[in-house]
Formats: sequence, structure tokens, C-alpha cells
Amino acid sequence: MHGTMLYGPRDVRFEERPDPTIVEPTDAIIRIVATCVCGSDLWPYRGIEPITQPQPMGHEYVGIVEEVGREVRTIKPGQFVVGSFFASDNTCPICQAGYQSRCVHAELMGAIGTQAQFARIPLADGTLVAAPDIPSDDLVPSLLAASDVLGTGWFGAVAAEVQPGKTVAVVGDGAVGLLAVLAAKQLGAERIIAMSRHESRQRLARAFGATDIVTERGDAGVAKIKELTDGLGAHSAIEAVGTQESMMQAIHSTRPGGHVGYVGVAHGVELPGEELFFAEVHLHGGPAPVRRFLPALTELIWSRTIDPGQVFDLALPLDQVAEGYRAMDERRAIKTLLWP
Amino acid sequence: MHGTMLYGPRDVRFEERPDPTIVEPTDAIIRIVATCVCGSDLWPYRGIEPITQPQPMGHEYVGIVEEVGREVRTIKPGQFVVGSFFASDNTCPICQAGYQSRCVHAELMGAIGTQAQFARIPLADGTLVAAPDIPSDDLVPSLLAASDVLGTGWFGAVAAEVQPGKTVAVVGDGAVGLLAVLAAKQLGAERIIAMSRHESRQRLARAFGATDIVTERGDAGVAKIKELTDGLGAHSAIEAVGTQESMMQAIHSTRPGGHVGYVGVAHGVELPGEELFFAEVHLHGGPAPVRRFLPALTELIWSRTIDPGQVFDLALPLDQVAEGYRAMDERRAIKTLLWP
Repeated sequence: MHGTMLYGPRDVRFEERPDPTIVEPTDAIIRIVATCVCGSDLWPYRGIEPITQPQPMGHEYVGIVEEVGREVRTIKPGQFVVGSFFASDNTCPICQAGYQSRCVHAELMGAIGTQAQFARIPLADGTLVAAPDIPSDDLVPSLLAASDVLGTGWFGAVAAEVQPGKTVAVVGDGAVGLLAVLAAKQLGAERIIAMSRHESRQRLARAFGATDIVTERGDAGVAKIKELTDGLGAHSAIEAVGTQESMMQAIHSTRPGGHVGYVGVAHGVELPGEELFFAEVHLHGGPAPVRRFLPALTELIWSRTIDPGQVFDLALPLDQVAEGYRAMDERRAIKTLLWP
Repeated sequence: MHGTMLYGPRDVRFEERPDPTIVEPTDAIIRIVATCVCGSDLWPYRGIEPITQPQPMGHEYVGIVEEVGREVRTIKPGQFVVGSFFASDNTCPICQAGYQSRCVHAELMGAIGTQAQFARIPLADGTLVAAPDIPSDDLVPSLLAASDVLGTGWFGAVAAEVQPGKTVAVVGDGAVGLLAVLAAKQLGAERIIAMSRHESRQRLARAFGATDIVTERGDAGVAKIKELTDGLGAHSAIEAVGTQESMMQAIHSTRPGGHVGYVGVAHGVELPGEELFFAEVHLHGGPAPVRRFLPALTELIWSRTIDPGQVFDLALPLDQVAEGYRAMDERRAIKTLLWP
């Protein structure tokens, strides 16, 4: 088969790779129907995360099951499946508590690489969720979004304890932040304040349910949120960037007793203890346990209640994956979908 | 009247002070029945928090209402009352959400000073909770404990989402940590692991409900907690110290998806963002909204269900307040009660 390898900074190659095979009896092999480039793929692409040897790329995927190992019970060949960027057994105490991204047997799909024609999925029964049927083409982008960005934005909203009738601030207007807006809307938030200074992203935020846009950042952004909330701050804030500035912006935008959900992968963040103590907010976040939400998200997409696939503003054949990275690196695209 | 003033490091004086009077129509004046020295009073006592001018001391109190302002509706002269170290209106949106320590009109009782014969209590209707009657003498220490250390330990347990049947680790064996053990027991925890290396405090922890004692600290302490919890970590951890080591010990002792409640006033703490992200715990804490819990705690004490007053291992006449500070500073006492 062919798959994507990163050889060094900005050196993405689509090349011949070994066909995946069943390694463990709990594995499945899927034929990838759609995959995409993640914001987090840009860290090694830009050389900020070091590359010591050529590495397979991609961790988002939907596909058709080709083959299953002898201990796979519920997943069947021919099914259309969605999975998360972490393989998980879905049976350990951590999974049962809803934290499949920290499953005691968790495996990172990024180490396998799903920007490819086929992929081996470990712990298939635990990892994969089958759609009711083979979806029509127009549903595929949304089902693919569920694999990571939608599931991550959704976890951000759940971690921020978004409640009906409440006010939510969303810090970050990438695909995850935009889908956190969609999640907040679905969870019943009355007022959703998207923090964005890009017009096209503001439009999508409004389409997903944002009621207010704040273009200011840092202290000025916080002041604006306070102004919109009787001086108290939002009930919830969702952090979808991962920098010191965005974390503090989220914490300061939240009222005492409120909730901050953080899903931006932290880079160089140090939280000052005294400030956190007196802020008296709740903090929760981390790598999203997407698997927890996949059954419900698949249903919402299948019934056409939500259309998260709108975050893909560029679609390319998989063999043009290098251009897909370039477009995101140069900010010409929010998110690139790849068709094998 | 006479009250306690701090003039400089280790210079505590019990001296003549002006009788408090009604300043705002929402004030009450109470005659202090019992007060005490807080671990946090030792920061300025030791000169770690600078003292720029003589300052009144004390923020814990129970007393008899002497006089109320013309806008006080529910609190009446003659009642025996308990209040928190923050005065709060108990009606603003933050109070209504249960965060009276961050009331939009919050006032620090420490600035008024309750290690005295009388004290002015701002926002009396919001701040004070009346006991059903004048308590017998043996109940007074427990009602006094509710004013801060019990309420703070209780908040730690609530912030750590202690649940029936679950495992809780408590970091810190001061009065707050010990009462967090008591709170965890009342909230139904099945296993309560107290982290303590002092025999007398271990004994009290066991009396309050601790099922296990871990004497190791830091990484060794964390390893011990993991060993006691199938390698997963506790469901909840309560942090009652406020140092970098204790915060990290609490975070590392908690399983993914678990809850850390922190009530130790943070000093020099910096939380590493990446580590926090991948720990995937919930964090919540800050200055305890004691007022939220006072009605329920008063009832538990009145019915003799709990006996938190056991944390007072030294009782002195108020005019010997300086010795009360010395005993705690030199670790001869866990907590000093003072009788005016």
C-alpha cells in the first residue's frame, strides 16, 4: 500500500509502505475511506517536535473493516467504522470511568499512521464504533471530524461543564475551538462567546452557534468577557490553543466557581499557583477521551442534527498529502481532508 | 475591649482596642465566645508575610449577638452564631452558586480581627448562621472549628468530589488535612489514605476515619498510593498544605479522570502545563466557601454526629494569646483555642 511518512521538517512523502497485517488477535485492518491533517501534526512538520527517524503520520480516520483478529467479537468485516486517535480496550476501570485516552492499554494511533490506504487498529472492539450502515458521501467528512476535532471540542465543552442557559467563552478559533462552539450549542448554552479575529472563522463560529464574537486577546479580551457578563465572567470557558496566554485568558474569563475545560495540547505552560488558588475555578482537560462520545456523536451526525464536516475547507486526494500540510502550515486552510 | 495585635515578627500583643460599633446598617456586633489561631496566622507571625503596621489578628469565631444594624433581618441579639473568615452577602450570583468566599461584596474577617472580646461582623444576615440554641460548653470547640478548619477540610473533600465507595488520599496532616479526613468519611469514602509521619496526628486521622496511613512523601508517597489502588491512583486527592511538593503529590496520586481538591493556601506553586495536561485530573480549590457548608455542619455538630473540636490540643485564656502563637510556631500544638 501507500502511506504518509515525515522525513524531516516540511519533508512529507507519500510512499510505498508494508501492507498492515493482524499482529494481535484483538486487531482489525481497515481500508481508510477518509483521513486528514491535524493541527498537532504541524508540530513535527515544523520541526518544533524533533524527528529522529522517518515516521508514519496521521491519527484521524474512518474506514471499512477488511479483516479482524480471532478475538474480535463485535466489529465485523464490511462495517463502516470511526475510531479515536487513541486505541483503548474500553473495559479497564479508567475506560469505564470515561477516560479511554488514558486506558491502561492505550496505544497512540499516530505511531501507526492513518494518512494511508490501510491501517491496523489495535483493540478493535474497544476502539471502533460502527456506523448504522455505509454512509452517503456527504456524511463522511462529519464522521471523520468525530474521530478527533469534534470529539476534542466536545470534551472541552463537557470538561467546562457547559450547561443549558449558561454563558460559555471559547478561546481559540481553530477546528477544535470552532467545534467546541458547536458542542456548547448542542449542550444548551444560552450565550456562546467565540474569541476570534479571523472573519472566515467568525462566520463558521456563528454558523455553529456563537452568539457573540470577541476580537480582543489577553487582558483586553478578558475585560470584554467581563463586560458581557455583568462583571462576573463566563460560567464556562473552553481553551483550545495550548499556550500560556490562552490558558490564562480562559482562567481569567471564568467566574469564581466556574469551569475551564482545556483541550489545547499544552506547550510551555506554567500555571501560577497563587493566582489559580484565588481564581477559584474548576480546571479539567487533557487528551480527549473521544471514544466516550463517539456513539452519541455518530448518531447526531447520522440524523443530520450537526454538520461538523464544515471545518474541512480543503479536500485533496491522499497522494497530494504534502500540499495538504503546506496549506495548513501557511494558514491557507483550517483543516485538510484527504481522500485515498 | 481587649484584642490581639501583631506588631512585627513574633510580637503578638493583647491590648486595649476600640469597642466595635455598627458601621453599616447590615452589621452585627458579637461578643466572642471562642476564637483560635490559624495556621495561616503564622505567615505574618513568622515575618514571611511582611507587616507594615500593627495589625489586628484572627478570623475564626463563634459568639453571641449583642447588637444588629437596622437592616439586619434574620440575625437577632442573643443568638449564638458561627461565621466564616469571609463576610458575604449570600445573595449575589457568586454566593448563590455556592462561592461565598468570592462574594462580590466579600470582606476578610482577618482585617477586623476576631482574637478579641468583641467583633463587628459585616453583612450579618449573609455571613452568620445561628445555632438552634446556646450550646453546652463541650460543643463550642466543634462549632468554632466549623468557622474555618472544618469548613475548609470539608470544601477540600467536596472539591475532590469524594463519593461513596471511593478511595481518597489526603496530603497534609494539619488541622485542615485531619478534618478533610473526617469530611471524606462523612461523604461516604470507603478508603481514606492519610499521608502523615507524625504519630499523634496519625492517631487523630484514624479516629476521624482514615483506613490507611502512608508515611512516605513525594514520589515514594505516590508509589505507595498507586500500590494501594491497583496501580491506578486514588479517585480523589485532597491537598491541604499549599507547597509545590504537596500539589504535585496530590496530582500524581490521582487516577486519570479523578479529582484533586486543593485548600492549602498556595505559596510558590507553579503547575507544569504539559504534566497537568497528560495527568487528565480535575482540579478545584481555593479559599473555602465555608458559609455554603455552615448550616449542615452546625447540624452535624449539634446532633453530635461529628466532633471536629478534637483538633484543638491546646486551650488558653485569650489574654495568653501570645503563648498560643508560640506553641503552634514551635509545633507543640496542632491548633490553639482561645477563651475570652
